Amino acid sequence: MSSELTLELSSKSFDGYQYVYSHDSFTVDCTMKFGVYVPTIADNECVPLLIFLSDLTSNEQNFITQTGVQRLASKYGFIVANPDTSPRGCNIEGDRDQRDFGEGAGYYIDATEDKWSNNYQMFSYVNDEFYELIIRNFNVDISRIGIFGHSMGGHGALISFFKCPGQYKSVSAFAPICSALKCEWSRNAFTKFLGQDETLWKEYDACELVSLYHGPMPYAPVLIDLGSNDQYKDDYLFPDKLLEACCNASFPIQLRQQIGYEHGYFFVMTFLEDHFKYHKNEFEHLK
Amino acid sequence: MSSELTLELSSKSFDGYQYVYSHDSFTVDCTMKFGVYVPTIADNECVPLLIFLSDLTSNEQNFITQTGVQRLASKYGFIVANPDTSPRGCNIEGDRDQRDFGEGAGYYIDATEDKWSNNYQMFSYVNDEFYELIIRNFNVDISRIGIFGHSMGGHGALISFFKCPGQYKSVSAFAPICSALKCEWSRNAFTKFLGQDETLWKEYDACELVSLYHGPMPYAPVLIDLGSNDQYKDDYLFPDKLLEACCNASFPIQLRQQIGYEHGYFFVMTFLEDHFKYHKNEFEHLK
Repeated sequence: MSSELTLELSSKSFDGYQYVYSHDSFTVDCTMKFGVYVPTIADNECVPLLIFLSDLTSNEQNFITQTGVQRLASKYGFIVANPDTSPRGCNIEGDRDQRDFGEGAGYYIDATEDKWSNNYQMFSYVNDEFYELIIRNFNVDISRIGIFGHSMGGHGALISFFKCPGQYKSVSAFAPICSALKCEWSRNAFTKFLGQDETLWKEYDACELVSLYHGPMPYAPVLIDLGSNDQYKDDYLFPDKLLEACCNASFPIQLRQQIGYEHGYFFVMTFLEDHFKYHKNEFEHLK
Repeated sequence: MSSELTLELSSKSFDGYQYVYSHDSFTVDCTMKFGVYVPTIADNECVPLLIFLSDLTSNEQNFITQTGVQRLASKYGFIVANPDTSPRGCNIEGDRDQRDFGEGAGYYIDATEDKWSNNYQMFSYVNDEFYELIIRNFNVDISRIGIFGHSMGGHGALISFFKCPGQYKSVSAFAPICSALKCEWSRNAFTKFLGQDETLWKEYDACELVSLYHGPMPYAPVLIDLGSNDQYKDDYLFPDKLLEACCNASFPIQLRQQIGYEHGYFFVMTFLEDHFKYHKNEFEHLK
């Protein structure tokens, strides 16, 4: 392990280890924590990596304590790494006033407005610094890296996949914010992070990005799960817009409506294994 | 559902439902919350019930959010109910000063000292009021009810099994406090709840109780898991004392040392399915 990482937690689970590390991030200019589960098989060989991006208000703890991901990471032999959802402790005025903006709500974008741009560089953090950090420090097969996420993190996973062609071999999402341009949460945040000019916002909207995507195509349609009782579905997530945009762009997607399920971790944990299977299948069909 | 229960949470998970209810408890004289997972199969038939007792500082949320129990309850077709670890909101002086005493730390015993005896009646709450409440309100097969728990809750499960012969057909535990008479946490609590006379304390010590037990014997030795890296093992849990007491009482027990595992939920979640299998096997061999 390189000296750049500080071990915060190490706990054996399903034969492998759940770790939490902290490190000084040069991208977001503060100390960041992340979770990483390492299965036993990674002691001896390079294994696939899944990066999971979390939802609004979560930190690096929620995914690793509330989904039972360790069982699946052990069973499938994947390293699973999950970054925090924002910079922390930067003490910028207003960064803790709203649950849908600031700490716990970075939207995985790079802020351009002066007040926020020194710290809120979550797109670059996840896809450059964090990505490289995980590859450098753990036994990752760099040809088999996927990304997925939940709600705000589903948005993050989709835009990361579309904006970094080929970097991630697979993508999936649970109840993602499908159109950040339309979602009230992200509109509020984008106004602050990016300013009033909505043309800039399109750089971080999955529906806009899919029409510009020219990278490798998935083998099976991208898996998106959504609960029929998701309380945010109609007013914040806009799955229909993504279906329409993907259809127009001839990008394959499968949006599964899960009857009776809601938005939270009880929904995510139920279908988490299906997402592992999806990514595994994509890795097995790499061109 | 009877009017005695107030629904606090209902969330679909693994095809069944995770609920949290509150109710006004006459036993502990305050409003109590509990979790209960109901698998789909219970819509049509009576199913087994497992009661899970949690550890120090937990409330009804920890077990249902941190162990992935829903997957197993669904897979095995069990109702799983978990009460809180203490009365709440009683505003007794000193009930929130220590992490190992008072709120979140009721030790599943019935207090006799005046200051605490009106509310801290957790043994009677779990084994009478809560037990009856679950049977009355959910589709439980009363011939197949087991109890298990973690740490303080492992102690609670063991003493409940021994003190209520035949009420629970099976018992198991994760890293239980094996001898409450020896554990510093419970000694502190018993002094306050029961007074100075340690002969009274023996009524709530698993090692003492096994020697008095004359109820039905388990089919397979009672399953107890303990992590070799459990930081509380030697000074608070005293597993050797339980092994010795069970041996002397000819009561069958299997204490599995799980190499490298610690005390917390990452350990519990890893071996939770083994405990479901254990209880299922006991139910299948009921005499």
